[in-house]
Amino acid sequence: MYSERTLCLKSSAIREILKITSKPGMISFAGGLPCAALFPLEEIAASIHNVLSKFRSSALQYSVTEGIPGLREKIAGIIDPDGTRIGQQNILITHGSQQGLDLISKLFIDAGTPVLTENPTYLGALQPFRFFQAKIESIRCDDRGLCIDSLKDKMRHIRPSLMYLMPNFQNPTGSTLSSERRIELVEIVQDQNFFVIEDDPYGDLAFDGAKHPSLLRLGGTHNFIYLSTFSKTIAPGFRVAFVAASEEIIGKLAVIKQGTDLQTNTFGQYVIREYLESGNYFNHVNRIREAYKNRRDRMISAIKKHFPGQVTWNCPSGGMFLWIKLPEWAEAEELLPRCLDRGVAFVPGREFFPDGSGKNTMRLNFSCASPADIDEGIKRIGEALK
Amino acid sequence: MYSERTLCLKSSAIREILKITSKPGMISFAGGLPCAALFPLEEIAASIHNVLSKFRSSALQYSVTEGIPGLREKIAGIIDPDGTRIGQQNILITHGSQQGLDLISKLFIDAGTPVLTENPTYLGALQPFRFFQAKIESIRCDDRGLCIDSLKDKMRHIRPSLMYLMPNFQNPTGSTLSSERRIELVEIVQDQNFFVIEDDPYGDLAFDGAKHPSLLRLGGTHNFIYLSTFSKTIAPGFRVAFVAASEEIIGKLAVIKQGTDLQTNTFGQYVIREYLESGNYFNHVNRIREAYKNRRDRMISAIKKHFPGQVTWNCPSGGMFLWIKLPEWAEAEELLPRCLDRGVAFVPGREFFPDGSGKNTMRLNFSCASPADIDEGIKRIGEALK
Repeated sequence: MYSERTLCLKSSAIREILKITSKPGMISFAGGLPCAALFPLEEIAASIHNVLSKFRSSALQYSVTEGIPGLREKIAGIIDPDGTRIGQQNILITHGSQQGLDLISKLFIDAGTPVLTENPTYLGALQPFRFFQAKIESIRCDDRGLCIDSLKDKMRHIRPSLMYLMPNFQNPTGSTLSSERRIELVEIVQDQNFFVIEDDPYGDLAFDGAKHPSLLRLGGTHNFIYLSTFSKTIAPGFRVAFVAASEEIIGKLAVIKQGTDLQTNTFGQYVIREYLESGNYFNHVNRIREAYKNRRDRMISAIKKHFPGQVTWNCPSGGMFLWIKLPEWAEAEELLPRCLDRGVAFVPGREFFPDGSGKNTMRLNFSCASPADIDEGIKRIGEALK
Repeated sequence: MYSERTLCLKSSAIREILKITSKPGMISFAGGLPCAALFPLEEIAASIHNVLSKFRSSALQYSVTEGIPGLREKIAGIIDPDGTRIGQQNILITHGSQQGLDLISKLFIDAGTPVLTENPTYLGALQPFRFFQAKIESIRCDDRGLCIDSLKDKMRHIRPSLMYLMPNFQNPTGSTLSSERRIELVEIVQDQNFFVIEDDPYGDLAFDGAKHPSLLRLGGTHNFIYLSTFSKTIAPGFRVAFVAASEEIIGKLAVIKQGTDLQTNTFGQYVIREYLESGNYFNHVNRIREAYKNRRDRMISAIKKHFPGQVTWNCPSGGMFLWIKLPEWAEAEELLPRCLDRGVAFVPGREFFPDGSGKNTMRLNFSCASPADIDEGIKRIGEALK
């Protein structure tokens, strides 16, 4: 009755945990929500007001599949300020980066197509890859991101069509691919000539304001497909994100998008364009960086105070997530119910590992809970750990 | 390099025509746009204002995949006023009905899965069906919709999994499935136990205000999956539409949607819910009905005056499209360039026929052009016809 690809369809574990975390009194480090109190609400309200008065019904009508013109141009300018590599013809507006992943999966993945990912990697990427029946092959990672040796090893046996990675402040680990490895990776990709999806939702949230060059800018559109979003920097509720790639790929993705949902919501695109044109964007992003940096520091202080000595953690230089390693013998999935009983939630790490390892790891989100809740929540996890 | 399913990927002919129709001075009966001048702009602006002041950042944050709660309830109440068959658990909010078609295709269609459609049928439905490599089997239609005899004939040879039809003011023909045929169809479907997608974007645009009962209400959620949208009745720019089906199917579609685009844009959902709660909806729909009825009448008057005697047309009792038949020997695709030269566009009918027939047919949209443009555009087509 149902299609073959839906036979192994299941809701993600995170989704199930998130259902529990909506209970009153629960402190959640489980989700991946940006902090709603930091949304530039008044500035967005002003942008909405301008859109309605300047563009009236046009902002409520159908528009073209690729995205409204000024917005594509503006985005090209943000990700490639020199304007040497990326123009508006290289941009497709999508309903969240999640849609970028769906469209790219449709374009590249047949049953059995080998797709390389980091180990661990973003669960929301594994969903469409698995749905289209890709064969996931995962590459070892450390605190400087993807291990190039592990990639070279893997490539002795596998000729990949597609690779997926998140080079900046990765979800789930918060780690960042080092500059040296970026250069090595670009060389391998160009030499072997396959496609890389560079997923970069958190790139603008570098706590020191510094940015590594994107793989897209280093390696060009012949091999690299870049995804980003305004969900983490402006607000997620408009679902405005984008793919940057070669004109050929953008053209194909646009035809696929046409049959998928016709176009990204017009009104949200007008609002985001207006907001970008208001000139408030970069100041606002600086405010978020500052606030998230403080929350990361707060969480690490609390961890130092409350977690037992055998537990280790990293100090991500941006983004929204912190990565915890329990002792080898421990299981984060066994810890979770004891934490939920104490009114605090996190995501056990194992689901993020395509190879099924990582049972002693956990992901903590630090962007969403208030500083006071961060202290209290970490204290409760500390109690459960003892 | 690309997936197998993309090998036959092509942009729709309509999309190509629409690119030409944006030229200044062009009168277009080609698109399927609702009339922007009729959008309830002031009322929507008021709803937006209320959403921002009542819900603030919540309206800009992520939300659940199924859709925001009050909206699902409200929709259940609109499509099943007795509340006997459909509750909020039966509703999934989607990014346009086009997304409903993508999600349903993902759930039901493997390569070679037989899918029954009307002949002609909506091109936007053929796109995802073909993309997922369904075997399209088309059923003859007349001015009362799908021919039950033709369906029975087809079912002697084929055991379908899925059928797609648009029972009210169909795109492209404007025809409506008669009450008798609805009852016969429900009996066949229940007897043979397959799924039917009832696509109903125009159901509320009945010019006499009368509504045939939906197949969903006649036949229930065991076999029927109902799609509709606020794109034609409020405004398309929010991309808020919905699927109504059994809880089991809604559950599966929600998991699929999670991997497709996570959720429908939160802000648009809040605005549509607020608008529905304002109590203006039904009055507004009445205004559109009245206006579109006048445009239909205006177009038919102009056709009577300007088209040669061998051309026939229908008089749709709702919706946005009128259907023209040229003499058997004529080809609408040959007529089109002569019309474009004269500054008027339409869509040749052949693309809508899965069996490749219909070369002498054309679709005229009457909702979007002004009454004066309707007169002038029909006059120009009349000249090209002579």
